[in-house]
Amino acid sequence: MLELRLVQGSLLKKVLEAIRELVTDANFDCSATGFSLQAMDSSHVALVALLLRSEGFEHYRCDRNLSMGMNLNNVSKMLRCAGNNDIITVKADDGSDTVTFMFESPNQDKIADFEMKLMDIDSEHLGIPDAEYQAIVRMPSSEFARICKDLSSIGDTVIISVTKEGVKFSTAGDIGTANIVCRQNKTVDKPEEATIIEMQEPVSLTFALRYMNSFTKATPLSETVTISLSSDLPVVVEYKIAEMGYIRFYLAPKIEEDDMKP
Amino acid sequence: MLELRLVQGSLLKKVLEAIRELVTDANFDCSATGFSLQAMDSSHVALVALLLRSEGFEHYRCDRNLSMGMNLNNVSKMLRCAGNNDIITVKADDGSDTVTFMFESPNQDKIADFEMKLMDIDSEHLGIPDAEYQAIVRMPSSEFARICKDLSSIGDTVIISVTKEGVKFSTAGDIGTANIVCRQNKTVDKPEEATIIEMQEPVSLTFALRYMNSFTKATPLSETVTISLSSDLPVVVEYKIAEMGYIRFYLAPKIEEDDMKP
Amino acid sequence: MLELRLVQGSLLKKVLEAIRELVTDANFDCSATGFSLQAMDSSHVALVALLLRSEGFEHYRCDRNLSMGMNLNNVSKMLRCAGNNDIITVKADDGSDTVTFMFESPNQDKIADFEMKLMDIDSEHLGIPDAEYQAIVRMPSSEFARICKDLSSIGDTVIISVTKEGVKFSTAGDIGTANIVCRQNKTVDKPEEATIIEMQEPVSLTFALRYMNSFTKATPLSETVTISLSSDLPVVVEYKIAEMGYIRFYLAPKIEEDDMKP
Repeated sequence: MLELRLVQGSLLKKVLEAIRELVTDANFDCSATGFSLQAMDSSHVALVALLLRSEGFEHYRCDRNLSMGMNLNNVSKMLRCAGNNDIITVKADDGSDTVTFMFESPNQDKIADFEMKLMDIDSEHLGIPDAEYQAIVRMPSSEFARICKDLSSIGDTVIISVTKEGVKFSTAGDIGTANIVCRQNKTVDKPEEATIIEMQEPVSLTFALRYMNSFTKATPLSETVTISLSSDLPVVVEYKIAEMGYIRFYLAPKIEEDDMKP
Repeated sequence: MLELRLVQGSLLKKVLEAIRELVTDANFDCSATGFSLQAMDSSHVALVALLLRSEGFEHYRCDRNLSMGMNLNNVSKMLRCAGNNDIITVKADDGSDTVTFMFESPNQDKIADFEMKLMDIDSEHLGIPDAEYQAIVRMPSSEFARICKDLSSIGDTVIISVTKEGVKFSTAGDIGTANIVCRQNKTVDKPEEATIIEMQEPVSLTFALRYMNSFTKATPLSETVTISLSSDLPVVVEYKIAEMGYIRFYLAPKIEEDDMKP
Repeated sequence: MLELRLVQGSLLKKVLEAIRELVTDANFDCSATGFSLQAMDSSHVALVALLLRSEGFEHYRCDRNLSMGMNLNNVSKMLRCAGNNDIITVKADDGSDTVTFMFESPNQDKIADFEMKLMDIDSEHLGIPDAEYQAIVRMPSSEFARICKDLSSIGDTVIISVTKEGVKFSTAGDIGTANIVCRQNKTVDKPEEATIIEMQEPVSLTFALRYMNSFTKATPLSETVTISLSSDLPVVVEYKIAEMGYIRFYLAPKIEEDDMKP
């Protein structure tokens, strides 16, 4: 039997909104340690990894490992019926082919339960090795979202270049070119407004803006985003979920024709 | 001659928004006692009844009974030109084929008059007998609107079931099933947040969500809604209009195939 | 070399939004005295004239007169990437075929530069003679915008009639007629809420509402609008830009068939 109770139910709503643009169907994996998901986007270019640790739930019971296949748009339809202050409980009986979402209003006057059929989804779990990155940028998530959106009105790809001084986002398109530089800045009033760069060596990589924009759907989950870059690895765009876990997006850099020149 | 002056003009704007999704053309009936309307929706399934009593107007003059046929979308276009704090006056001369809406800004600096041609609309006035209902539910109108909207993302019909403990709204569709229970709750800080059930006997009836959603366009008119249910009668969904009257929506229950089984 | 630095960068964003619905491509003319633009709308019916005086800029350097042809939608795309509190600098090298917009965030942590190709645009500069007007109306710009929008839901043209008592906006369409009268009112708490009429003689002129609605896109630039009317001249709808200049829209009156009768 599975029973997960999350007092801050709006968090689950935000998680769904963060990934459903990228992923249509996916398996949610439940084990004693937590609730997780790993899925490729439909064009098999980007990877999403979600973890909500069991300690973060008010009540967490998972008698045996369970993989529940769901259509994320349908889950989202159901979760959108939860109030922002509702407590959400996810329930599944062993061997059942359904999952139940229960929403309780804070004063317990309104109780809703939504039952959904589970799906069989083939998926292989990719092992993601820990890696050393040439540069790690931590910046306000809303700033990163704004930059990706702004550059999309000019071009299709973004070149992210990191130096000790700051991180530069560049693009080019039919109407012109754009460069946005965010300087390293640790001395701000609020720590979540800092832009902090940990750099082993300068790095400059090109990515499709379309995917970056999809990743920024996770912005409501965290005030900061961490971008980890290395020349020979997919970028990791990570949004921490307070005291519970994270959503991580992985995307391989584009090989630009210019890069092939000696 | 007809001349009705309503200081709280925004109320008339809300009345139009409440009914124009359901009804296209309708007769407004004016008599010494008040301003009223009764109309079937275009598919002849639901009935709307509006009453604004003469006492609710700042000035009310109606020399003889008058039935004014109007296209509600056109009325709505004109009323949307009134400011939310404007005083609205409705005027018609005896025998005239036009009606005039006059809008005065609170400081009298801006005065607008809109004249509209009246239409001939055939309509028969249905007598609606007073009835005893098996169950009457009073609940916050915004809560009822939210439930109808939420269930619409899952299914097409809603089963409303009333017991002494509360009222349950249920639906089912391709993606799953949903049940939302609102418990009776009289002990709330604000009386308009109460959910109160007057029940002679338990009742469970099925309705098309599409119409219920149309009815909830009246939500801005009142903080509470009253739902009166009996097995052999159309449901009445009533929004009181403070100190003036009401909008009532009538809808026959659906006969479900399941209901026909013994 | 050209270098214009505007601390209140949001003003430039508002200027673009004010004119880009009317004008697609236009030359921005820079001289020692200021930054200006004059352009006909694409159907050659309305004229826009913009002036931002050099004194209004924090820094203004223009070594020689320069006419820079730009697609306003592309400029708008770039300016929308500036934050509302950003400082905007416009730069162009002598003889260069590009212009650069630089955006600095208030704390200097984020610096963006957008480079755009210039275009060759044929344009003839019309001399607009100073004129005496029969009537000049100054009123709140938001009120004027609301009236144009409201009347558009009824008809296609507006008759603006000025008398000593006030200004009347009238229209007629299939669904009826509308008249909105704004009375002269100089004794208001805030001077920007006044409606002030300077009249030599009464005047009544007809204009296409479509253009009037386009002009009101400039509403965010100024709390008041000035409308100057004469029977034999285009109307001037002017939005002052605080301490810097103005946007003026010119539109010829319609000759109504009724006007031709003796």
